Amino acid sequence: MRPYKELTKNELLTVKAALEEEYKTMEAKGLKLNMARGKPGFSQLDLCESMLDIINSTSDMKTVLGNDTRNYGDLDGIGEIRHLMAAMMDVKKDNVLVCGNSSLNIMYDTISRSFTHGVNGNLPWYKLDKVKFLCPVPGYDRHFKITETFGIEMINIPLYEDGPDMDMVEEYVNNDPAVKGIWCVPKYSNPTGISYSDEVVRRFAALKPAAPDFRIYWDNAYCIHHLYEDTKDEILNILDECEKAGNPNMVYIFFSTSKISFPGSGVSAIASSLENIDYILSHMTVQTIGHDKINQLRHARFFKDIDGLNEHMKKHAEVLRPKFEAVLTTLEAELTGLEIGTWIKPRGGYFISFNSLPGCAKDIVAKCKALGVILTGAGATFPYGKDPEDSNIRIAPTFPSVEEMEEAAKVFVLCVKLSSAEMLLKNME
Amino acid sequence: MRPYKELTKNELLTVKAALEEEYKTMEAKGLKLNMARGKPGFSQLDLCESMLDIINSTSDMKTVLGNDTRNYGDLDGIGEIRHLMAAMMDVKKDNVLVCGNSSLNIMYDTISRSFTHGVNGNLPWYKLDKVKFLCPVPGYDRHFKITETFGIEMINIPLYEDGPDMDMVEEYVNNDPAVKGIWCVPKYSNPTGISYSDEVVRRFAALKPAAPDFRIYWDNAYCIHHLYEDTKDEILNILDECEKAGNPNMVYIFFSTSKISFPGSGVSAIASSLENIDYILSHMTVQTIGHDKINQLRHARFFKDIDGLNEHMKKHAEVLRPKFEAVLTTLEAELTGLEIGTWIKPRGGYFISFNSLPGCAKDIVAKCKALGVILTGAGATFPYGKDPEDSNIRIAPTFPSVEEMEEAAKVFVLCVKLSSAEMLLKNME
Repeated sequence: MRPYKELTKNELLTVKAALEEEYKTMEAKGLKLNMARGKPGFSQLDLCESMLDIINSTSDMKTVLGNDTRNYGDLDGIGEIRHLMAAMMDVKKDNVLVCGNSSLNIMYDTISRSFTHGVNGNLPWYKLDKVKFLCPVPGYDRHFKITETFGIEMINIPLYEDGPDMDMVEEYVNNDPAVKGIWCVPKYSNPTGISYSDEVVRRFAALKPAAPDFRIYWDNAYCIHHLYEDTKDEILNILDECEKAGNPNMVYIFFSTSKISFPGSGVSAIASSLENIDYILSHMTVQTIGHDKINQLRHARFFKDIDGLNEHMKKHAEVLRPKFEAVLTTLEAELTGLEIGTWIKPRGGYFISFNSLPGCAKDIVAKCKALGVILTGAGATFPYGKDPEDSNIRIAPTFPSVEEMEEAAKVFVLCVKLSSAEMLLKNME
Repeated sequence: MRPYKELTKNELLTVKAALEEEYKTMEAKGLKLNMARGKPGFSQLDLCESMLDIINSTSDMKTVLGNDTRNYGDLDGIGEIRHLMAAMMDVKKDNVLVCGNSSLNIMYDTISRSFTHGVNGNLPWYKLDKVKFLCPVPGYDRHFKITETFGIEMINIPLYEDGPDMDMVEEYVNNDPAVKGIWCVPKYSNPTGISYSDEVVRRFAALKPAAPDFRIYWDNAYCIHHLYEDTKDEILNILDECEKAGNPNMVYIFFSTSKISFPGSGVSAIASSLENIDYILSHMTVQTIGHDKINQLRHARFFKDIDGLNEHMKKHAEVLRPKFEAVLTTLEAELTGLEIGTWIKPRGGYFISFNSLPGCAKDIVAKCKALGVILTGAGATFPYGKDPEDSNIRIAPTFPSVEEMEEAAKVFVLCVKLSSAEMLLKNME
């Protein structure tokens, strides 16, 4: 196929007319598909079915240390779940607090607490004229929404295939004391699927922040969410690297089992230095008497150890791989050579990120919607919902079935082509 | 028995010497009992054993409306649990948000959100010079800790047998725009066990707050926690009363199943006007994707309806009654006529509140501790942990067994007597 931009006006008009025919055919199908959010599919949820049997009326409800999980206590999480979650992050048990069902909630609370009470004795952010966060883009809309809600100024940082633009990160963090944080999804990034290189992680750890309360918000949501057994991404341990670089308190790591067991009924955790953990606990003890320890016990007994977790993740990969490949195969078959879009083949995580010709993303999403295929809103992957190029689209292939994904991918490439042809023709006027 | 204060110095010295003998005997027993916190006992936890079977791998995991509880969604709680919790509070389903495992956490978040973002469009509290809360005393230490953490000035309001001193409440609320809230445990109050009279509830509803963002923080934690079938306290529906009085948005009601099913693994809720609920949801959607819906389903299917809940509470009452009576019987048998302490016989809830002679509470708690009986720290029932009279002691009879409670109560009255005798002798010097 020749690139669209090399076509003459007449050739493009012919292409467009054919695409419009196809569009009408699709329209007639009355599809109803949702690729908007990173929701696990039913067959993934079924993988944890037997977890619902593991705690029952005959179970010993005591932890290894003898505490009754049915009663108050263990604010920091029961020992066995802290062990398990620590193994997930390759940190020590004491560096991990296991909380409720939502790591997003821990992140919100971390920002909120910094706003109201400050970070480890520094001035609360509400007393400052300006607080800024760096936001590698494209990124996760719910991160940006939290910082936006607290009136924090967000600064876009380009995200490359090995991580954020570290020259820019260093420039901002090391010179501007208003920069208090950076949102990172370091492994199988949401939405681009890339993982940070060792050099990038080391440069993060070696930052010399102008603000003593600058923290890296390391959302390792997809830490063991590989799609392929033979091409697993591994990233350096940021907590270790920060300690080695003399910045032991500089990172908060967030993670959960939301996409391992059940979204909404999993367990979430934060890992950090002992000093940070102590500070967080000193506030958490005012906020709650404790988290759901029966559910922590359920998870600890079901997965047993890190090997149990990894085995379980292989089953998820089996389910997810064909869905990702359905999209990727269609993108490759239909768009290669047309030069109207780029994408990265992810080796894990929950998303495929697509970059259209500038100015086309919103239109593509609208066209897909008109054909019954719901995508994440264009712009959602940028702070304030504003993609300056109007180019990035996040595809979430996990929830629909493989067959539905194939259908949805066809709709998607059709809309990409039609929107691109229309845009190029418009530019010729 | 003659009142201690009518005894001569020599008589008191004789009493004291006998008590000291008793004290030594007790000391030798090496007791280890905890009456400090309102924790359910093991036999109460066992009452919900079969709840752990109700959701298993063969269960239909869908809500009545067809949503899969295993996946994301239903931020406001699944319909069936909202129905159940609404019935508990005698409000409509749409007035209830069902959240995670901790109503304390909802209260913290409500204060925190008011601090960072304000109440329904009013100025965030961090922008105000001064925020004040009224605190009926004695009250719940964890309420006071939340307001203290946010730098909110707390004002003591005497709590009588029919509720707070409403003259004082009206005086403050209707005239001082800095007064933004009042902490209430309106039924089987923590710690005194009293319930608010209809007149008190109506006077609450009829307040004319100087501050548009004044709210009543109505922690109805013990709403169905009766000890006796024939003497149940019932209070007026504050949400209805506020609406009737033209103050529809003036109250937040908090409640949970922590002391119905499992502390830490129950479900919690907030009930309020639709306007307040909408405002809360608009922030909650930034904070989390949703709460644990599998646990919500577990609770809804186990209790079925309000009758199921009430039947279950009768079983709790069977367990708790003898524990309360063990304390009350000992107090009556050992202290009646001595005029060294007062208490109220509660008809429900989790506590017995004891008022010693002024200046004795800390000493009694210390003496009990020396004998191996842990009580809630004296002063804890007051803001900033400061009981101006050093008189109030909260007794939590739920966790120990009946036999242990009998033993602990004996220790308690002994320490009350000894401390009172010492105090009276000291005053004679």
